[in-house]
Amino acid sequence: MPAGEREARIAWSRITEPEDAGAHELVASRGAEAALAAVLDGSAPGAARYRPRIETLDIEQDLRLVARLRARMLVPGDDEWPDGLDDLEVPPHCLWVRGPEHLREVCERSAAIVGARSATQYGESTANEIASGLCERRFTVVSGAAFGIDGAAHRGALAVEGSTVAVLAGGVERPYPDAHRGLLERIVATGAVVSEVPPGCAPTRWRFLKRNRLIAALTRGTVVVEAGLRSGSRSTAREATKLARVVAAVPGPVTSMVSAGCHELIRCGEAQLVTDAGEVAELLGDLGTDLAPVKRGPERPEDGLGEVESVVWAALPVRSAAGVAALAVRTALAEREVLACLGRLQLKGLAARDGDGWRRPPRERAG
Amino acid sequence: MPAGEREARIAWSRITEPEDAGAHELVASRGAEAALAAVLDGSAPGAARYRPRIETLDIEQDLRLVARLRARMLVPGDDEWPDGLDDLEVPPHCLWVRGPEHLREVCERSAAIVGARSATQYGESTANEIASGLCERRFTVVSGAAFGIDGAAHRGALAVEGSTVAVLAGGVERPYPDAHRGLLERIVATGAVVSEVPPGCAPTRWRFLKRNRLIAALTRGTVVVEAGLRSGSRSTAREATKLARVVAAVPGPVTSMVSAGCHELIRCGEAQLVTDAGEVAELLGDLGTDLAPVKRGPERPEDGLGEVESVVWAALPVRSAAGVAALAVRTALAEREVLACLGRLQLKGLAARDGDGWRRPPRERAG
Repeated sequence: MPAGEREARIAWSRITEPEDAGAHELVASRGAEAALAAVLDGSAPGAARYRPRIETLDIEQDLRLVARLRARMLVPGDDEWPDGLDDLEVPPHCLWVRGPEHLREVCERSAAIVGARSATQYGESTANEIASGLCERRFTVVSGAAFGIDGAAHRGALAVEGSTVAVLAGGVERPYPDAHRGLLERIVATGAVVSEVPPGCAPTRWRFLKRNRLIAALTRGTVVVEAGLRSGSRSTAREATKLARVVAAVPGPVTSMVSAGCHELIRCGEAQLVTDAGEVAELLGDLGTDLAPVKRGPERPEDGLGEVESVVWAALPVRSAAGVAALAVRTALAEREVLACLGRLQLKGLAARDGDGWRRPPRERAG
Repeated sequence: MPAGEREARIAWSRITEPEDAGAHELVASRGAEAALAAVLDGSAPGAARYRPRIETLDIEQDLRLVARLRARMLVPGDDEWPDGLDDLEVPPHCLWVRGPEHLREVCERSAAIVGARSATQYGESTANEIASGLCERRFTVVSGAAFGIDGAAHRGALAVEGSTVAVLAGGVERPYPDAHRGLLERIVATGAVVSEVPPGCAPTRWRFLKRNRLIAALTRGTVVVEAGLRSGSRSTAREATKLARVVAAVPGPVTSMVSAGCHELIRCGEAQLVTDAGEVAELLGDLGTDLAPVKRGPERPEDGLGEVESVVWAALPVRSAAGVAALAVRTALAEREVLACLGRLQLKGLAARDGDGWRRPPRERAG
């Protein structure tokens, strides 16, 4: 049997499934080692449910495995343990990590980018661009390494040599999906691959669901890029909301079934609409320093005119000239008012005399 | 000079431009006829500005024109005068109308659909579908007859023989744009074409801007389908907000410049996101009777299972069978709990005995 808290936490991660509230309570109240002893001697409440797996434990072998994978095992209190995990009602017993990044540090300024496995070309390229843009703004991109949006987000981060973290539902040594073996190797080489289930564990449906709460907890906020109405990404969004993290969603064509989940999130007020990395950074970033540029169309010379001035400006002919009397009829203003406006417009370079009349100045002079 | 309030209001619509606050105040406080007399004798404040056009007045000719166009002229107090116009700070002096619809009645349950002239195929087909869907839900579709979204909205209404109203910036006898001559003839034949400027008036830039406030005021709410960042549709949206009408916007690809204005409206909280006619009807319709159907994905047999039941269900093999002990290890539950769950799942048709073990029932039997 394991000796010490660290080894006992490995045992707990082996004998429970993620988010086992009873096990968490036992460990939190007694310490991992004492809680394990209480299961073994039958004195812990609900001890029976942990028995079936206890017989299969081999902590020595787990430690050898960690060494062979050049992985590491983190427990609460370690310097690298990410702060965000403490916000979870049922945090993991430990984390299994591969890759050079310091997990706590890179998660301090991070965004989750998640979405449909059956993403469209539009969704993948949007995820890719948002991920690259966030990395250029010094954010870490966290995702789940799945097909579709997840993969596109990791690739967007890697493309700009940014920081990216993959959180897996199975063991950190298992590439899943298998087609993402190369992608996960690149993340292990430069970023971090993380799981709360021990090496050797398969990514079951339950573990996928529970993995989503880690993605939400590790980051400042979650961006859903494409999601069907029943997408797992919506569970990540829900977890993020529960944890008081920001939730954002990217819109798309109303005809696209994989944008329908995003639109529902926005419609129900569960997510804020975002269209690019700048807007995500503004939502997740530091107040004042991460403001997105204001979206505006091209400037026009007539911007900023008063109401009466813009009536007169709009009435000025472009090619011929018009007299003050004609402009007064056209604008339903008194001649005196028209004349005063023309003077002000002339000063701004927006009206020019032409013989007895007035017109707009040629384009070149209007600037 | 005109005799009677009705004729005096024709005069006021000729000698002013839309939304002339001073003129409105004169007419509202003294009556149209007395206000006109006060302009003629110079006793009205700001009388000078109305002089230039007074000399061009010919009310008799205007009345003949109305008769020839088989148009009608509405003034406040008329049975057909739409209630919504009274919400405007500066309502029109009168309305010029062509077409068989009773304007007040059709506007009682109406939606404005507006958007970019340079719309995309996506935007036009969305506008078309939303307009058809709203007409099928007994809404009148109000728009501005412009190229792009406006035209698509009118056509969508006409396609299902729905009610549609075009509000023009120029006179009601002037098809604008000229390419929409046929479309406007169809609307004159079945719906209503409306303007606050008298016949013969050109659709100037100023009149376009002011026309937007009528579209907002005539309807319960405005749907912006596509809009650039500087689109005139955003002015309609702003007017609708000022008038406490609902504003909704349709999302689109984040790469589309003509969806950027819609996304900004949603992001800034100025518009609610909508994706189809049902959602618009829910926003604009009568409480309780116009609810949009809840958006949901396909139902799955495992929906509604408790947490422990769904863990066991997820662990059940599909093709082979597993014993209770194996399931206990797989789920990290006690054998007793697994067995109880299996019983409940069996009752729901979600688990089946197979020899000594358990499995999921074949698809057919699961329903």
